Amino acid sequence: MADFAAQPVLIQARYVVPVLPERKILEHHAVVIQGERIVDLLPGELARTRYPGAREVNLAHHVLIPGLINMHTHSPMTLLRGYADDLPLQQWLAEFIWPAEQRHVGPQFVADGTRLAIAEMLRAGTTCFNDNYFFPDVMAQTVSETGIRACIGLPVIELATAWAANVEECLEKGLDLLNRENRSPLVMFSLAPHAPYSVTDATLRRLSDLSAEYEAPVHLHMLETRWEVRHSLGQHGITPVQRLLNLQLLNSRLLAVHMTQISDAEIEVASEHGVHVVHCPQSNLKLASGICPVAKLQAAKVNVAIGTDGAASNNNLDLLSEAQTAALLAKGASDNPQAVDAFTALKMITINGARALNLEGQIGSIEIGKLADLAALDLQTPETQPVYNLFSQLIYAASSRQFSDVWVSGKRLLQDGRLTTIDIESVLEAAEYWRSRLSADISSPNQPQEGLAG
Amino acid sequence: MADFAAQPVLIQARYVVPVLPERKILEHHAVVIQGERIVDLLPGELARTRYPGAREVNLAHHVLIPGLINMHTHSPMTLLRGYADDLPLQQWLAEFIWPAEQRHVGPQFVADGTRLAIAEMLRAGTTCFNDNYFFPDVMAQTVSETGIRACIGLPVIELATAWAANVEECLEKGLDLLNRENRSPLVMFSLAPHAPYSVTDATLRRLSDLSAEYEAPVHLHMLETRWEVRHSLGQHGITPVQRLLNLQLLNSRLLAVHMTQISDAEIEVASEHGVHVVHCPQSNLKLASGICPVAKLQAAKVNVAIGTDGAASNNNLDLLSEAQTAALLAKGASDNPQAVDAFTALKMITINGARALNLEGQIGSIEIGKLADLAALDLQTPETQPVYNLFSQLIYAASSRQFSDVWVSGKRLLQDGRLTTIDIESVLEAAEYWRSRLSADISSPNQPQEGLAG
Repeated sequence: MADFAAQPVLIQARYVVPVLPERKILEHHAVVIQGERIVDLLPGELARTRYPGAREVNLAHHVLIPGLINMHTHSPMTLLRGYADDLPLQQWLAEFIWPAEQRHVGPQFVADGTRLAIAEMLRAGTTCFNDNYFFPDVMAQTVSETGIRACIGLPVIELATAWAANVEECLEKGLDLLNRENRSPLVMFSLAPHAPYSVTDATLRRLSDLSAEYEAPVHLHMLETRWEVRHSLGQHGITPVQRLLNLQLLNSRLLAVHMTQISDAEIEVASEHGVHVVHCPQSNLKLASGICPVAKLQAAKVNVAIGTDGAASNNNLDLLSEAQTAALLAKGASDNPQAVDAFTALKMITINGARALNLEGQIGSIEIGKLADLAALDLQTPETQPVYNLFSQLIYAASSRQFSDVWVSGKRLLQDGRLTTIDIESVLEAAEYWRSRLSADISSPNQPQEGLAG
Repeated sequence: MADFAAQPVLIQARYVVPVLPERKILEHHAVVIQGERIVDLLPGELARTRYPGAREVNLAHHVLIPGLINMHTHSPMTLLRGYADDLPLQQWLAEFIWPAEQRHVGPQFVADGTRLAIAEMLRAGTTCFNDNYFFPDVMAQTVSETGIRACIGLPVIELATAWAANVEECLEKGLDLLNRENRSPLVMFSLAPHAPYSVTDATLRRLSDLSAEYEAPVHLHMLETRWEVRHSLGQHGITPVQRLLNLQLLNSRLLAVHMTQISDAEIEVASEHGVHVVHCPQSNLKLASGICPVAKLQAAKVNVAIGTDGAASNNNLDLLSEAQTAALLAKGASDNPQAVDAFTALKMITINGARALNLEGQIGSIEIGKLADLAALDLQTPETQPVYNLFSQLIYAASSRQFSDVWVSGKRLLQDGRLTTIDIESVLEAAEYWRSRLSADISSPNQPQEGLAG
């Protein structure tokens, strides 16, 4: 509930796009926040009358929108940004990413990489992210320290990693986090089996039970590549979709990431079971994995949200740019210039993400009673003028660098372009520290060449 | 030649990427400019010894690259940014764009729109653009006033427009500009027939002759959609490529824009005749026109550059973002994650554009003797750290908003993020003026809705 001990703050904005009701644009309105909640939404002048003496934040040239929700990333991999690119997936993983992870990933790497990622995401208007990486305890701690919101995956993979020697240890450590008391209200957890091909039926069945018991989402890479489907047919005699159906994982707690290979028949199955699809268009293009049929999924009423994927493959956490790619690619791939219009793309990075996390009552739109997770984008630049259509400006023209202010649970984490809870200098120093460590012990294909003679 | 009366300026940069030699990265080097030219490129410390007392510009955290070359745009259409989106091409043109142009396009519209576009492009690291719109005289004047470099198309279309009543008047006015003396060294002209389907054989034949006589490029929308190929077969009994071949327009002066429908056999023809292809991936996706087969074109040694297209269709003039889309889309479309690697994409927005304009001896790379058209991008942000690979950072991670400084012919047009020859406030005021005029007289599908009751 609203914290009535807290003083109300009026955020006066040139435009407010609440996302719900759909396609609504409010001009010269105020969003009133008190404590962590939105308590009012009304014309700016009326707000001054109703809340005399309240502190105001003036966003004279801005559009205020719900904070963006990045539905798939691996935050600590910001420290591997550009470590290896322009390679086939298997070579990229086996020769570069996995060896680097084996040598370097530990609590400090995860803390430093997560903080770098959060700095990047807050600057880009993102207020909530759905992650999957090792050391979820460290990630949760970093999330809580910086004040952003996150759903942290509890990783489950059959291989030994720095986090856990085997599935048993994955589950034990995961359950420990799920059962922990005094958890930050900013953090929720998902169960995060890596992918159908890297986790056994027995493990998936246990995760299905745990997901029901804890009402926890299952965050899963799925149908990313053609290889995965062939592998499943060879190994199990059935497709990954059929296998997950048998294992009772196809339900509204499933966050199925990528889904480039989903067939028309499987789209119906996904719809029927309320599966949420997380689309990562830039990562899928870059790794030449395939193209998720977003227009068809939406026609079948499947909820589709968007993720950036990790910075080692994408290479940034810019969700607005990802939404632009999603909108353009859906048109190109479906041969229909009306597919995924600008407002639909905006929904995909706000309310659709909230729905996928079962948080649609709390975040994803600017509505009275919801948590004050907000982002303000300054439109007063050559790149976003003139303004005929706010949705077009946001999705097709704006840069994420135009976000000036961000609030999470009513706390202003980005103020006039400056982060209030993260020291950028120390974040950049940590990035440089890891760069020098990683560069020293492995020959990346991407090292700078020697200088020309003078 | 270098202007030895001018004082040398040392641009000291953390990294210099000259583009030629290919894939070279220079660390802690200085680019020395004198007057309008690059006169030296050497280690920073050595530069201080060789040019004692010279003025220095310090780019401690930056990468200095050749200024970007936007090979296809319609600058004044920035004033129609977001005017109509998410529509089929014919409806978009016939119901919204053409009526708006018929009512509003004139010298003032073109001057204001071009200035807005140049402000946007300079801020995004672009130092040269290849344009096609009405009132090329006004555009040339605006280019010259702002100090950017451009190739301005002399538009030729059979329909009556605000610029010319018919083809005769198009050609007459165009020749007048081509023959004019005292032209700005920043401006060159191309012949710009709109498209094969909108210009007759007779006109195209005359343009072929004029192109040879004036050594002027021919800037042409070509093979943008499937419809165009069908139309040509119906109208002429041959494909557009065969028709242009017959009309002697397939040569190294042809800048063929879009080319989404080029067949494998036609790729060989284009290669043989030295045709330059201008790829506009975001526009092609957004209008669902098709996908230009960039990987195949490059394999056939066709020179491929990149354009943003106009802001009415794209909706910004962000060439770095366009290069990212080109790199990702080429991989996705060719099913090969190694297609169009980051350095190749960088070439497409620098030296390949210079080659297409037959300016490769003057611009497109940082080499001694070339014109000082340069752009500096600040890497010291969370989004582009750590730096393992500069090319990956530039193409896959950086935002064009990180460009801090831009020089054209040795003149600093962007300095620490501020434009030196354009008054942003008046540009934004003009944009607002045109928005209110255009919004008043036509019902755009994109008007803001009325506010919620308070």
